[in-house]
Amino acid sequence: MESQRGNLMAEEEFSELAAARRIQRLTSHISPAVTAPSQLPLVQTEACSSRLKKLEVNGEALSLHMRGKHMDVQEKVFEFFNSRPDLQTPIEISTDEHRELCMRQLLALVREAGVRPFRYVADDPEKYFAISEAVGSVDMSLGIKMGVQFRLYKNSFEVLINIGFGSNVQGLQTTATFDPMKDEFVIDTPHDGAIKWWIGNAAVHGKFATVFARLILPTHDSKGVSDMGVHAFIVPIRDMKTHQTLPGVEIQDCGHKVGLNGVDNGALRFRSVRIPRDNLLNRFGDVSRDGKYTSSLPTINKRFAATLGELVGGRVGLAYASVGVLKISATIAIRYSLLRQQFGPPRQPEVSILDYQSHQHKLMPMLASTYAYHFATVHLVKKYSEMKKTHDEQLVADVHALSAGLKSYVTSYTAKALSVCREACGGHGYAAVNRFGSLRNDHDIFQTFEGDNTVLLQQVAGDLLKQYKEKFEGGTLTVTWSYLRESMNSYLAQPNPVTARWEGEDHLRDPKFQLDAFRYRTSRLLQSVAMRLKKHSKTLGTFGAWNRCLNHLLTLAESHIESVILAKFIDAVQSCPDPSARAALKLVCDLYALDRIWKDIGTYRNVDYVAPNKAKAIHKLTEYLSFQVRNVAKELVDAFELPDHVTRAPIAMQSDAYAQYTQVVGF
Amino acid sequence: MESQRGNLMAEEEFSELAAARRIQRLTSHISPAVTAPSQLPLVQTEACSSRLKKLEVNGEALSLHMRGKHMDVQEKVFEFFNSRPDLQTPIEISTDEHRELCMRQLLALVREAGVRPFRYVADDPEKYFAISEAVGSVDMSLGIKMGVQFRLYKNSFEVLINIGFGSNVQGLQTTATFDPMKDEFVIDTPHDGAIKWWIGNAAVHGKFATVFARLILPTHDSKGVSDMGVHAFIVPIRDMKTHQTLPGVEIQDCGHKVGLNGVDNGALRFRSVRIPRDNLLNRFGDVSRDGKYTSSLPTINKRFAATLGELVGGRVGLAYASVGVLKISATIAIRYSLLRQQFGPPRQPEVSILDYQSHQHKLMPMLASTYAYHFATVHLVKKYSEMKKTHDEQLVADVHALSAGLKSYVTSYTAKALSVCREACGGHGYAAVNRFGSLRNDHDIFQTFEGDNTVLLQQVAGDLLKQYKEKFEGGTLTVTWSYLRESMNSYLAQPNPVTARWEGEDHLRDPKFQLDAFRYRTSRLLQSVAMRLKKHSKTLGTFGAWNRCLNHLLTLAESHIESVILAKFIDAVQSCPDPSARAALKLVCDLYALDRIWKDIGTYRNVDYVAPNKAKAIHKLTEYLSFQVRNVAKELVDAFELPDHVTRAPIAMQSDAYAQYTQVVGF
Repeated sequence: MESQRGNLMAEEEFSELAAARRIQRLTSHISPAVTAPSQLPLVQTEACSSRLKKLEVNGEALSLHMRGKHMDVQEKVFEFFNSRPDLQTPIEISTDEHRELCMRQLLALVREAGVRPFRYVADDPEKYFAISEAVGSVDMSLGIKMGVQFRLYKNSFEVLINIGFGSNVQGLQTTATFDPMKDEFVIDTPHDGAIKWWIGNAAVHGKFATVFARLILPTHDSKGVSDMGVHAFIVPIRDMKTHQTLPGVEIQDCGHKVGLNGVDNGALRFRSVRIPRDNLLNRFGDVSRDGKYTSSLPTINKRFAATLGELVGGRVGLAYASVGVLKISATIAIRYSLLRQQFGPPRQPEVSILDYQSHQHKLMPMLASTYAYHFATVHLVKKYSEMKKTHDEQLVADVHALSAGLKSYVTSYTAKALSVCREACGGHGYAAVNRFGSLRNDHDIFQTFEGDNTVLLQQVAGDLLKQYKEKFEGGTLTVTWSYLRESMNSYLAQPNPVTARWEGEDHLRDPKFQLDAFRYRTSRLLQSVAMRLKKHSKTLGTFGAWNRCLNHLLTLAESHIESVILAKFIDAVQSCPDPSARAALKLVCDLYALDRIWKDIGTYRNVDYVAPNKAKAIHKLTEYLSFQVRNVAKELVDAFELPDHVTRAPIAMQSDAYAQYTQVVGF
Repeated sequence: MESQRGNLMAEEEFSELAAARRIQRLTSHISPAVTAPSQLPLVQTEACSSRLKKLEVNGEALSLHMRGKHMDVQEKVFEFFNSRPDLQTPIEISTDEHRELCMRQLLALVREAGVRPFRYVADDPEKYFAISEAVGSVDMSLGIKMGVQFRLYKNSFEVLINIGFGSNVQGLQTTATFDPMKDEFVIDTPHDGAIKWWIGNAAVHGKFATVFARLILPTHDSKGVSDMGVHAFIVPIRDMKTHQTLPGVEIQDCGHKVGLNGVDNGALRFRSVRIPRDNLLNRFGDVSRDGKYTSSLPTINKRFAATLGELVGGRVGLAYASVGVLKISATIAIRYSLLRQQFGPPRQPEVSILDYQSHQHKLMPMLASTYAYHFATVHLVKKYSEMKKTHDEQLVADVHALSAGLKSYVTSYTAKALSVCREACGGHGYAAVNRFGSLRNDHDIFQTFEGDNTVLLQQVAGDLLKQYKEKFEGGTLTVTWSYLRESMNSYLAQPNPVTARWEGEDHLRDPKFQLDAFRYRTSRLLQSVAMRLKKHSKTLGTFGAWNRCLNHLLTLAESHIESVILAKFIDAVQSCPDPSARAALKLVCDLYALDRIWKDIGTYRNVDYVAPNKAKAIHKLTEYLSFQVRNVAKELVDAFELPDHVTRAPIAMQSDAYAQYTQVVGF
């Protein structure tokens, strides 16, 4: 953190204030304090006077530009659960009760509220993800359980993996052997080591499982059988009426988890379980009545890749839902920080804790990032919807890489941000009722499931290297990184010593400077890692070289994703029709861009992309923009349109509830 | 994170591998995987061959140098709870049950195990903190509850605040009015807003509370009473026999928290509760039978400062306990990462996931930091013990600042590290049984109680500014920052352009270079912030200027604490008698120092303290040292002497239990 705040150096000397300050600080965080507020003035008077320059934001226009097409269905979900206190997850609940409640929530959503997400999985993914986000804000377990449950029927492959984590190389030993006599498959898990764990809905509620298994066909040659590779099968695991576990199926419970305890994860083992031939999910390969295999894809590996390719929907959903969690968390922390009064300048009213520079530093770049990720994931969902309609090959590749990158980048950020928010709200952030604990515990695993973030970033880096290679062979580039071809040559030239010294605010806030800086970094990282890989592979082999450059590759992937996010953010600013809303967005966009540049200032300084004084100017402007964003923080947070009954934390209530809470809780 | 890994740039071109890699990566994190291990070789062969150069560490000598004097009592605590499964906290437990269990654990510790921590609070704090660390590793709620409970009797002031958080300016409205007729004080909370919340042990188990209240004495002048300022009083809150709440005492329950739910926090309100005159804690001020007030301290403010000064013990304890949590967490993550095999080079055995560069990057600087903080907090506890014996004024000031700095710095680090450890263990880190969830939730509030970290760092910065001022007035400096006087002038000269280019390993691993770099940064930050404060105070006033420089001040404080930690670490390396243990310590010390310099490389580059090529050399050496530390990671972790029944996480078991777990859990 220090490099973000630090390195301001100058030439005068200082007079006084430490001893008195020390006592004063000491008193300010314990109770009871020793003096009246007027004697404990901690905050700059400037903060108050500068607010006169405050930008007037048209909140309605800002909300309109932010809100998706499907706000209505989100509101329907919010209203339904608000009207049903019996369906709200209590602050403290046992795992068993949570699992049952979560099932009741899900059934009520479909049967009583009439919200039927499974309708939209394939036909209107934007609407599906909007429902998913809203449901997740009620209880993240419900959001995940819904994903596991409903995507089964429309998009079957994604089911098991949707909540599955862990990397089980033996898992593939499960077989589905075709029995032509009975027109059935026989599913077998050969031994305990091949058991699949962490399957969502398996421990208690699931009726069916989608099982990956090797398809084994009888042949007439000497081997007797032929292994057609991995396919997916629908296997009933519990009786439709009695809910008893079916013969040959063994189920174990994965037990208590750090979070998401409303989801019942379990392990499955099959002993000669028979299913009809029709239960083979035959999109990528099929078996006829007489045991003949057909597929539009020529090899086992291609079929497996196609099967895995379906995973992308889960990643899109997680990236989108992670932004939803970040919005709730940032909203609670910022609303509290605006409401919470503490001390103030001599003989002036107390000011909000968001007037502290350190508090702005914690929360304002986070608010800017929330906006950045909002626009980036809205873009991703749109691309995904297009892909589902057109099946355009270019678009498939683009969505694949973009979803891997955004899922890993956004979920890692949100996980850290949740801790920052808790800490920014002090002791009250630690009361379970204020939600940071459950949000953090539930969201934590977003970094791991649907592909571990470290692994996904390597996919992004791998794709960039592929593009880099193709550039030199004249091949096509996917949409997301076409900027690399367009500008690789110019970015890889030596930095311009003249612009490296420009430090005016107009220049630093010019989207062209910002985007150039982001893309320059990506281009340099790409070129240099390609060269290092080539060099090391001579002595270490391909795999040794990859591992030797692993940190470098991860940095490259993150840098690229940041470039993509910034580009989408700049588009969103420019397309905003209302001038005041556009000005507010420009402010957060600039803060996002400059904060990221400052965080990696060492890289830019090392190649003299920015001169020392320009580095200082970037830092100074970042602090100033944080202060400016603070002045419209309320409007920016309100534009997320999260009412009190969705945020739920008493410390963030906009109504009288906050005053009631402070009275009861004894601030 | 990117600046730690990134910015390596060079000049060749790369050939191949992306597409195959992408599929391969994709398969590596889902189950079932598509190919046999021999076809999925992800790790550098170098990792294996280089292990031949592995340092042979004398583990016993290393442990001996690490272990405190009081390992025996820690082992007694561990053994006792290991022998009593009925006293172990289950993975899932309700708040009510947890509170009762925690009380039973505490009683059993004292009555059955015969461990009596309260004996040592004042006389042998090193032993007290050792017990506290061991007890905290059993259940952190127990560690905190013990602190609240036992420190009451010996060191009374610290009690309420020990678990109290929140900053209640109205709290001081509580009064203790002396009634000379009955020789009693009458305690009154004037209204709801003056209620003190978050008091440990208050909701269920407490018999007494230590209450801060204004001491009101009757006078014979026209005012009728005189307010003598804040004093502490022992107030019985429940009947010793029936445990009923006493008349005039109202108690509310603070409810479910993010963690530490074994501690029953509550709120207290008093309505004319009478206590004997003797219940005034009279160390800093006393009242005679006839209502005369005496004190060795002349003013209300001095008495209040002395009262608050007693807080320091709680901070020492938290800093120490936080290192204990970091040790457990790092041990679980590293042992798992060594045990967990995944893929490997072609036709070679699978390697541990700690062979991945990215995994080393996550965990090896963390291991180095754990060592650094171990020696720093051992030093702090020693200083604190001396202080308790001598009451030397210089030492009091030194311990005060050092405890504030280390408490905030170490707890912030550990909080982040716990999330990194969870994530490094993937899905299995998310199983509650593997402990990262409860460790993180319990430890989280360490950042807030006993003084919010952001507030404490400001105290450190305030003290540094005071020292800075005194330097120019020829005053004395406290022990901790005497380096500032000795070397301020040399540090504030222009960086040496010759040494800025030295990049040899001997130079970079020279403690003098490392310590100079740390202290240079602190000195520059101190000088520049002093100057900025002076400049801004002319236009913004003292308080406005402080807020305008707040981020800068926090960076200064962190930089200073890092300098102190490094200096103690270097001492610990040099005083290690065994050569192989010393070599291992030198390795982690170098990694700690260079990783920190690299993290703030922008600052050093901006003033040309290091040239671009030196910056690259530092980065390269940091990666290399991480790799070297990985090769002795087992020995370094073993030296913490945490047996399986203390770490408890199945994924980190050294015995057959790990194999059993993998079989059951289905890796």
